[in-house]
Amino acid sequence: MNTLILTTFDWVPDLPRGYVRDLRVRWALEEAGLPYRVESVPFRDRAAAHFGHQPFGQVPWLTDGDQSIFESGAILLHLGELSDALLPTDARQRSEAIQWVFAALNSVEMASLPWSLARFLEDNSETPAQKHLEDFLAARLRHMESVLAGRDWLVDSFSVADILMADVLRLVDRFDGLADYPACADYVARASARPAFRKAYADQMAHFAAAD
Amino acid sequence: MNTLILTTFDWVPDLPRGYVRDLRVRWALEEAGLPYRVESVPFRDRAAAHFGHQPFGQVPWLTDGDQSIFESGAILLHLGELSDALLPTDARQRSEAIQWVFAALNSVEMASLPWSLARFLEDNSETPAQKHLEDFLAARLRHMESVLAGRDWLVDSFSVADILMADVLRLVDRFDGLADYPACADYVARASARPAFRKAYADQMAHFAAAD
Repeated sequence: MNTLILTTFDWVPDLPRGYVRDLRVRWALEEAGLPYRVESVPFRDRAAAHFGHQPFGQVPWLTDGDQSIFESGAILLHLGELSDALLPTDARQRSEAIQWVFAALNSVEMASLPWSLARFLEDNSETPAQKHLEDFLAARLRHMESVLAGRDWLVDSFSVADILMADVLRLVDRFDGLADYPACADYVARASARPAFRKAYADQMAHFAAAD
Repeated sequence: MNTLILTTFDWVPDLPRGYVRDLRVRWALEEAGLPYRVESVPFRDRAAAHFGHQPFGQVPWLTDGDQSIFESGAILLHLGELSDALLPTDARQRSEAIQWVFAALNSVEMASLPWSLARFLEDNSETPAQKHLEDFLAARLRHMESVLAGRDWLVDSFSVADILMADVLRLVDRFDGLADYPACADYVARASARPAFRKAYADQMAHFAAAD
């Protein structure tokens, strides 16, 4: 088996620390106990080679032998092929986990990221578009609240779908957006109490702090 | 092989017609020549059973035998398993196509949907959050412009990644957001000239018109 290499930025400002997407990959690698090492690319001066690996100039990407994989969702599905700690082996459960991977990224994060951006910018404008984004997120959270009230994890056992959904909801929680959604808040607390999350989080914080 | 069943709304207002996400699934099914039929659920009165199939009360979902699959991204990956007209059989190309599936939904649509929402609402407020969303989309489109300037499709042959990316960019184009990005505009034109797209589009329009 190849040694996996996770590439992230060498440094980021304080605000995004603890929320940079390499955390999703670290978390999955720690859950699976897969050996890996971390490499860095400059945050400030992004070279053409960086865009060769990640066409938007973002992080992370994963190197597995001669394969280079970008997009946290694609990386987590790839890791899911390597470990049944990350994706169920049962075909139906596996399909459900993959559906929830997309739900986290394309139904929930699509609503939560623009909302979080406004919070991040401390922009509380009541424009029609902002109001619509508030309602969009509220609708998504209301439905996630029903889903999560009845279960610990999205499918029968913890999977990459939970890494993504919990990470998406964790950013909402950061800006106090889960106050009316106790099952969502409990889910985030449950997920981020996992030793693999704690190690991933501490490692990301230490990685960026080392460059200060 | 099971007959595939695509479920969508019975009716939607005029504005979203031609852009409802069942189109992505119809398009993939037509590209692959897979037999399917279309069923409807009420747009106005969404039953508990609807949420059983699609936890956010949205459409589409796909029924394949005793499996029910939601999220257009997950449905298209599932269909990709059924036809090499939708996903390359070569492992590296297949992995790249999957990365672009996520890029379409989590890197580009995450920027384009909130932007389109503001256009849709005719909200041209210059708030900090709106300005940030404009810049976010512009950055994504600038990078997609470089990518698409050099190729017809995202991987060597047309795949589900193109269905998703072209559909995402098509909504930007609807609100004249591709004027400064000729390679993106050409890509949308090339994708939507495909017979499978034309049939999917005409079928969606006819489906909703039949309920007027």
